Amino acid sequence: MSRRINLAVIPGDGIGQEVVTQGLKVLRAALPQDVKLETQEYDFGAKRYHATGETLTDTDVEQLKGHDAILLGAIGDPSVPSGVLERGFLLKLRFLFDHHVNLRPSKLLPGVATPLAGQPEIDFVVVREGTEGPYTGNGGTIRKGTPHEVATEVSVNTAFGVERVVRDAFARAQARPRKKLTLVHKNNVLAFAGHLWTNVFNEVAKEFPEVTTDYIHVDAATIYLVTDPGRFDVIVTDNLFGDIITDLAAAVSGGIGVAASGNINPSGEFPSMFEPVHGSAPDIAGQGKADPTATVLSVALLLRHLGYEAEAARIEEAVAADLGERGTAPRTTEEIGDALAVRV
Amino acid sequence: MSRRINLAVIPGDGIGQEVVTQGLKVLRAALPQDVKLETQEYDFGAKRYHATGETLTDTDVEQLKGHDAILLGAIGDPSVPSGVLERGFLLKLRFLFDHHVNLRPSKLLPGVATPLAGQPEIDFVVVREGTEGPYTGNGGTIRKGTPHEVATEVSVNTAFGVERVVRDAFARAQARPRKKLTLVHKNNVLAFAGHLWTNVFNEVAKEFPEVTTDYIHVDAATIYLVTDPGRFDVIVTDNLFGDIITDLAAAVSGGIGVAASGNINPSGEFPSMFEPVHGSAPDIAGQGKADPTATVLSVALLLRHLGYEAEAARIEEAVAADLGERGTAPRTTEEIGDALAVRV
Ligand SMILES: CC(C)[C@H](C(=O)O)[C@@H](O)C(=O)O
Ligand SMILES: CC(C)[C@H](C(=O)O)[C@@H](O)C(=O)O
Repeated sequence: MSRRINLAVIPGDGIGQEVVTQGLKVLRAALPQDVKLETQEYDFGAKRYHATGETLTDTDVEQLKGHDAILLGAIGDPSVPSGVLERGFLLKLRFLFDHHVNLRPSKLLPGVATPLAGQPEIDFVVVREGTEGPYTGNGGTIRKGTPHEVATEVSVNTAFGVERVVRDAFARAQARPRKKLTLVHKNNVLAFAGHLWTNVFNEVAKEFPEVTTDYIHVDAATIYLVTDPGRFDVIVTDNLFGDIITDLAAAVSGGIGVAASGNINPSGEFPSMFEPVHGSAPDIAGQGKADPTATVLSVALLLRHLGYEAEAARIEEAVAADLGERGTAPRTTEEIGDALAVRV
Repeated sequence: MSRRINLAVIPGDGIGQEVVTQGLKVLRAALPQDVKLETQEYDFGAKRYHATGETLTDTDVEQLKGHDAILLGAIGDPSVPSGVLERGFLLKLRFLFDHHVNLRPSKLLPGVATPLAGQPEIDFVVVREGTEGPYTGNGGTIRKGTPHEVATEVSVNTAFGVERVVRDAFARAQARPRKKLTLVHKNNVLAFAGHLWTNVFNEVAKEFPEVTTDYIHVDAATIYLVTDPGRFDVIVTDNLFGDIITDLAAAVSGGIGVAASGNINPSGEFPSMFEPVHGSAPDIAGQGKADPTATVLSVALLLRHLGYEAEAARIEEAVAADLGERGTAPRTTEEIGDALAVRV
């Protein structure tokens, strides 16, 4: 474990700057004295796009490669056409840096409100594939804008890509007390991809005899997420299904205000990127209303990825304690950040 | 409106027979004396598949074409490999009979349990496209079973297909008190299909100036379905997104025990098919435990489609009254069917 962290910080748009400031505050508070934290801020996002027309240049990518990890606030603004920043920055980075493990834990902490009745126990992790599926941009359009337009989207799934993420998910399941892994797909309809996923899943399962396995169609998975979320321990799924069910998972386990995520390159060949699941929320930007908790929890995932397990755990405990004691009086972004930094 | 209904009845597998029996009972009770109901039962499903290896032959299709509508219980059994009956029967019929409007209403009725806290108001309809998207079976596999396998799934979207279902959804929104239509897609990532859907939606919107429109990404839609389902009136979406969000919609609005659906060919060129959203539930089959309510509500959709609006409304009122007065004592499939038939 290096005693120096060279961090790229991308505040981004909307509430991004506010939440990242608090995330860094808690990060600094959590780190041992002898660890040197170096940060470099990057101005990606809507402002840069409007000024230069660029979302992420080759030079940017080279610079980012030099960091140990990336902390991202939020990217996206209504002034930019839908998809430009998403595909030109977020997804581009996930693909270029081979972030194939998109990690999204869901834990309903005591005292946290959920839209579900009866405060069920929720504690699972979704391992979403991050570099394949319908996210590759494959597909096209013919006869655009005519009554005979045909638009296709191609989901690309490779044994290589599926196997590495499935193996990662099995290892995570193996390391958890319940040791259970659920594959979520739609193999009764998407038979080509479904066969590959199911087959690889069953093959890799043989290497993890202690892990209990399960298969659920994505449509049924959304039912269980609201009627019996306790049944899940680790879920592995494709890029698009993962996108959909992790938003739902965030909603039922306390909302996107507390949902963290990691875009992970497990080999360490490229820096991994950590970000709250929420967006830039331009409607409340600059008002100190944003909850920085999701960013702080993303910082914990970042620290764990870099080998600072004890520090990550301390942050998670601080968040749990803070959420458990939150009254009804609203606090500012900064107040929440301060409270967490003190507890850490 | 014909005073004769020539109905194809497909009980199918598992609880299919039980729920269809009650559905027909309520149908008979609801129809005016002078309407002649003719039914013909078909044995599609697992048993036929095991006996003959067939799921749906050309002769079957020709026979089915002669009916005014089809009532289906449930198809699917663990003894048949996943996908065989789904693709060989259910989806085959949706495609052959051009069931492009897959109609799935969600209404939380008084007295019905929901996993959501605070018993929110839920009353919306999903218009799911039924003949395109990732359901077309396009795609393929190379190097199957090797470490270099590549499997693709192609989502096919045509202006023709999108426009007709979008127009149908606008007309349905126009006819409802709130007159609101939400397009659900993922146009920031699936840009080819997303552009087509968004563009067609905005074009058709011009013909319906009274309808308020809205766009939501599919991932965010799952959040709203559990945090603010009251915001939805009519939703139009693609085949796969529709599959996913309607299971979630069913879960939050009383469960799949009460979720009905119609696979509709609006032109009447081919018979439309009505079925509960639930599956064949082999674990409880033959025990009189299945709730026939979803099938009975599907019968209401069937009657409305055939022009029997008053009778459809009577069935829906009977169901609402029955659900409102349901005690905690469990009733058998038959008892529920009897109670509904009496009320109608
Ligand atoms: C913004 C968008 C491209 C992104 C995705 O679809 O992956 C987001 O929804 C997420 O889940 O991180
Ligand atoms: C059984 C399956 C093929 C089907 C679908 O995916 O459409 C079902 O889930 C449904 O929603 O009717």
